[in-house]
Amino acid sequence: MTAHQPLASWRPGPRRDAILNFINQVTNPGSPCYVAPEDRIATFDHDGTLWVEKPDVTEITFIKDLMLHDEIRPKPLCGTVWGFIRHSIAVFMDKLLQDTRWLLREWIDGVSTDDNKRWVQCWLGKARHPRFHCPYPQLVYQPMLEVLTLFRQHGFRNYLVSGGSCYFIRAFSEQAYGIGPEQALGSQLRTKVTEKNGRLSVELKPIPWFLDNGKGKVLCIESHIDRHPIAAFGNSSGDIAMLRWAGQSKTSLCMLIHHTDAEREYAYCPGEKTLKAVSDYGWQLVDMKNDWLQIFPVATAEQLKSEVVSSAL
Amino acid sequence: MTAHQPLASWRPGPRRDAILNFINQVTNPGSPCYVAPEDRIATFDHDGTLWVEKPDVTEITFIKDLMLHDEIRPKPLCGTVWGFIRHSIAVFMDKLLQDTRWLLREWIDGVSTDDNKRWVQCWLGKARHPRFHCPYPQLVYQPMLEVLTLFRQHGFRNYLVSGGSCYFIRAFSEQAYGIGPEQALGSQLRTKVTEKNGRLSVELKPIPWFLDNGKGKVLCIESHIDRHPIAAFGNSSGDIAMLRWAGQSKTSLCMLIHHTDAEREYAYCPGEKTLKAVSDYGWQLVDMKNDWLQIFPVATAEQLKSEVVSSAL
Repeated sequence: MTAHQPLASWRPGPRRDAILNFINQVTNPGSPCYVAPEDRIATFDHDGTLWVEKPDVTEITFIKDLMLHDEIRPKPLCGTVWGFIRHSIAVFMDKLLQDTRWLLREWIDGVSTDDNKRWVQCWLGKARHPRFHCPYPQLVYQPMLEVLTLFRQHGFRNYLVSGGSCYFIRAFSEQAYGIGPEQALGSQLRTKVTEKNGRLSVELKPIPWFLDNGKGKVLCIESHIDRHPIAAFGNSSGDIAMLRWAGQSKTSLCMLIHHTDAEREYAYCPGEKTLKAVSDYGWQLVDMKNDWLQIFPVATAEQLKSEVVSSAL
Repeated sequence: MTAHQPLASWRPGPRRDAILNFINQVTNPGSPCYVAPEDRIATFDHDGTLWVEKPDVTEITFIKDLMLHDEIRPKPLCGTVWGFIRHSIAVFMDKLLQDTRWLLREWIDGVSTDDNKRWVQCWLGKARHPRFHCPYPQLVYQPMLEVLTLFRQHGFRNYLVSGGSCYFIRAFSEQAYGIGPEQALGSQLRTKVTEKNGRLSVELKPIPWFLDNGKGKVLCIESHIDRHPIAAFGNSSGDIAMLRWAGQSKTSLCMLIHHTDAEREYAYCPGEKTLKAVSDYGWQLVDMKNDWLQIFPVATAEQLKSEVVSSAL
């Protein structure tokens, strides 16, 4: 097996076969399951499905870092309210939930979508994962990159459907996954058009507008794509509705990524309800430890290996 | 000039040259104005820009027809409330505005997006324009179809950004304009996921969710595309913000369609404010009477001609 084979990081077996058979069925014009290229839509959850989400979901890590490091933010936090919130962060993490409204207002109100994008990109360039010590965009899953590529090569359009905000993933999804911002969907805040020196700008408002999780993922797919996905990948209960939605297509591929590899990544359960859905609806359950020969891209894997060697010296 | 020439329905002159020069500038790799294919985004208002919007905006005509003809609706209107509304329609059109909330609830609540699409398609197959006596999808503007084609041939992605609802235009935009539903944006209602016999369905709720007009068009473009359009076409004050947004790109083409042809289509003014914006921002003003050699597609034009002949017999 070479790296140029499709799905080179997937161990030969039922899951790899399921993907290849599915591709063959829907793209073979002679097949009763043939699907026209314009309807080859695949939807992918992001955190835990395309990249690592432990020890914390990366966007949460980003927000924490940003709260504590004013210098890389386009809008510094200062004044009494921020002092109060900073005190809360230090002393009462629980109480922070109550401060969310204040926090959003102080943190995001009036920041343009362009500034926000630069700010995420700046952070992604600097931040390092606490365990793997590399930038977060290097912790994408190599087997899933191969799925995205294989799908693209067969006329599919791949969409991210993240529970996180679109303002976060759109800052890097094109580079990381070859998925442009118009195909990167996520939770949203309200926005507002403002004018300054004769130029229009779109600013974020501190008002939650759309939560892209659970059934919200179906609404988001319907609102933005308005075509029925025929493939969907997820890893948690927030993806059940999305996988069911794809599963209602005549021919479909629904896969749930099960994090079973504490050594190479993390091991945690998606929950009883999710595993029951896998069984009830006959979805493919990917066992990361057994089904994936490699977790991270080659460069990352080599870097991690050399770090282990350095530590051992 | 042959029909295979680009922009065959445009009279040679400044507007036709502006489009061809723009295409040349942004697609020529040697040009300082070169734009990579992924950023070649063009946005088009729909009513009055891509097809006829007189004597009434077609979606309004659709709604009026549907209110008065129960038999083609998936959800018949009956009962006291509907009787009351029907009375209002007949007697007091002004009062109808007050009944909008009731009407929306009675009319749309619980209708699935799939049913709604079938319903629009059914109506488009039956309804005839009161002046031209042909189906509405035949009243698209031939010169604009040529712009869409030319753009597509040069790596552009064309988006509809309609003030009307996406539920209406998505039912025919792929067939009429080669623009799939994922690139047809418009005003939206809230939606809800419901379950029946183990299958999920997306239903429309009678709650306005997003008005895609004026500055709303900019918010819609930012939310759905998150790339700066470099070309935009509109015809009314509701398109000013969208044209300004495209105009902020380094190289851009902004065109306002001016309806000046009472004989072949209609003549009406987009309003002082809009004409001032054309002048202030240096946009192209298309004079339909002078700049368009032909208004409707060949088939429609021939049909209209033969109808005139029949009437004259």
